[in-house]
Amino acid sequence: MKTPHIPPEWAFDFHGHLCPFMPIGYRMGKLAMKFLNVEREKDHGFFVFPQLGEGHPQTCMMDGIQVATGATYGKVLMEKTFYGKLAATFYHPKKGAVRYSLKPEFIDEMGKFEFFAYRKCGVEPSEIPPSVVAEVTNWVYEQPDDYLFKIEARPDFTFTPPKHSFNKAICSVCGEYVFERYLRLKDGKPVCIPCSGYNKGR
Amino acid sequence: MKTPHIPPEWAFDFHGHLCPFMPIGYRMGKLAMKFLNVEREKDHGFFVFPQLGEGHPQTCMMDGIQVATGATYGKVLMEKTFYGKLAATFYHPKKGAVRYSLKPEFIDEMGKFEFFAYRKCGVEPSEIPPSVVAEVTNWVYEQPDDYLFKIEARPDFTFTPPKHSFNKAICSVCGEYVFERYLRLKDGKPVCIPCSGYNKGR
Repeated sequence: MKTPHIPPEWAFDFHGHLCPFMPIGYRMGKLAMKFLNVEREKDHGFFVFPQLGEGHPQTCMMDGIQVATGATYGKVLMEKTFYGKLAATFYHPKKGAVRYSLKPEFIDEMGKFEFFAYRKCGVEPSEIPPSVVAEVTNWVYEQPDDYLFKIEARPDFTFTPPKHSFNKAICSVCGEYVFERYLRLKDGKPVCIPCSGYNKGR
Repeated sequence: MKTPHIPPEWAFDFHGHLCPFMPIGYRMGKLAMKFLNVEREKDHGFFVFPQLGEGHPQTCMMDGIQVATGATYGKVLMEKTFYGKLAATFYHPKKGAVRYSLKPEFIDEMGKFEFFAYRKCGVEPSEIPPSVVAEVTNWVYEQPDDYLFKIEARPDFTFTPPKHSFNKAICSVCGEYVFERYLRLKDGKPVCIPCSGYNKGR
């Protein structure tokens, strides 16, 4: 038994290397879409909140989620929560929300593969022997969904996207365009955040 | 004269719709890579800091940048600065940094196309007549690089990626794995951020 949710070839081109986590994210995304009964997002209507962070491994899941769902970072549909967990909440305003997480037993079992010995020595995924990468990736493909994923409906989850505006103005210092939300005032004139000398955007 | 930096077909599958901005980001990414003399990033060594934010249009650029550079959000190589500007800084620890921004004159000229009249009425890109989308996208393809982009070498730009650790532990409340950086303590026991009741991860 092999999962039908295997990423298309271009997903590996996008991601840059073969590893087990991009495909895990892809599968998570496909299953969450099925759970919520949503199609791949063409525009700006489906949101994913990966509960991952920075400075830890296995974040590659998020690239698989982008590929599966179309809820991309570029369309401002994906934003990490910085919780350092292997989970994500999927939210569609008309269909509700569901959280998928990786089960600890699955993570422990997967962690026994040689791939992780290389990674813990600092070997980058593209430098690991392809047979070692294929071994763990294929093993994951063969495990049933309920061995990988805990699923929690989140009926109370809500999210209000930031109000959208096309308004923009020229920074009076650098002469570049700035969208209105990020304009600041200095000596009575509109400036961008870097030219303002004030703190970051939010 | 047409730019040679036109996204591959799969980039449009990834992004979900045709619009001028994904291709602009792709082209920006390709040019920045050439400027810095870096290859598409397979693993985790090339960083992009888009100076965009949220609640404004034209963020689709970032998907094109992900596609071109391999500096993806899933690999934690891309992070917005929340400045609301149409620009990005590209940084390779061994090759230096460069900032590319869109020139206001180009933005103004592009803004005259019918595509933007639809967008300002709230019509999603996938719902705009394909000929209208093609008109502006093809026009952009035909403009020279120096009409689109301002280029600034950033010799003083530095960035230190967060220290990486594989350490993780089980949250004593929910039983899920948490990477060490995001573990908190509550009543002397390790917990994840949501179970802690404390504030967000950072």
